[in-house]
Amino acid sequence: MRKNLGAKTYAYPMPVFIVATYDENNVPDAMNAAWGGISEENEISICLSPEHKTVKNLLQKKAFTVSMADEEHVVACDYVGIVSGNDVPNKFEKAGFHAIKSEFVDAPIIQELSFALECSMISYDEKTCRLVGKIQNVNVDEKILTADGKIDVSKLNPIVYDPANHDYLKLGAKVGNAFKDGLQLK
Amino acid sequence: MRKNLGAKTYAYPMPVFIVATYDENNVPDAMNAAWGGISEENEISICLSPEHKTVKNLLQKKAFTVSMADEEHVVACDYVGIVSGNDVPNKFEKAGFHAIKSEFVDAPIIQELSFALECSMISYDEKTCRLVGKIQNVNVDEKILTADGKIDVSKLNPIVYDPANHDYLKLGAKVGNAFKDGLQLK
Repeated sequence: MRKNLGAKTYAYPMPVFIVATYDENNVPDAMNAAWGGISEENEISICLSPEHKTVKNLLQKKAFTVSMADEEHVVACDYVGIVSGNDVPNKFEKAGFHAIKSEFVDAPIIQELSFALECSMISYDEKTCRLVGKIQNVNVDEKILTADGKIDVSKLNPIVYDPANHDYLKLGAKVGNAFKDGLQLK
Repeated sequence: MRKNLGAKTYAYPMPVFIVATYDENNVPDAMNAAWGGISEENEISICLSPEHKTVKNLLQKKAFTVSMADEEHVVACDYVGIVSGNDVPNKFEKAGFHAIKSEFVDAPIIQELSFALECSMISYDEKTCRLVGKIQNVNVDEKILTADGKIDVSKLNPIVYDPANHDYLKLGAKVGNAFKDGLQLK
């Protein structure tokens, strides 16, 4: 039996992106965003409303990083989503984050988070809230790599947002598929 | 130690969206898309290149549904990503899917998948591949709901795409957080 829940902003999985920028004095800031995703090859789009400190920074620096929130840092990642950089200027530091300057763009990489996209801003539209970024580089902590240099998702341990229940979830086991594992349709 | 992996189209988690449409004869079609996400309140955006049968259908019907691929149907969901509706006109049926006409938009709901967004097309841009849809309704199988009518993610059992390893993963346990569980920064 199917049921209608009405119009809701639900999708599964939804990401927990931590968007980091520098302000005009190179003070790092970070925020938490779940409305976004890959929008083209080497391109990410995220909905950020214009009042965010992050957006003010973005428009000056034309650059940002996107780190994946992980289980180990869920409280810090959640904190940067609850508190505004407009009210708490040292929010990044208070979260326990340390900034490393990106080699590719004028934005901070968060040392504590193992996976970051370094992005240059392609566009930001205040009316639609849409930020579009070009992924210039993927920067990772080598501790999440396998011996042959591939990303080990269980070591990255990214979290997922559940919009219907306002929960964070971790990822589980690999599921066999047709393309890679040759499973057949019944 | 941090490492640079170069420009890659990676994000965690990445969704496994199954986009379903009707053609001009009301034959249902479905495809698999990982490049997309929520782009605004009650709005989803997905990158679909114009040669897809889905795009041809979309432009006629101005409507589509987005179901979440789940573990139980991973082979069928993967199959609709491997085979083109341009080559296999009965791909939807071959996948083992059955269509229910949406009450809200001119597009099929896939009976086998428990969670669907029913969307009207806001825009499609061939150059950027960007499809934008308004979520008119969330339609679910009641088997994924708790007794009090909320979505139980463990019953939905959606899968996640791992772009670095071309794997599908399931979701795992809930992770406590600051906002809901009152966890504090150290």
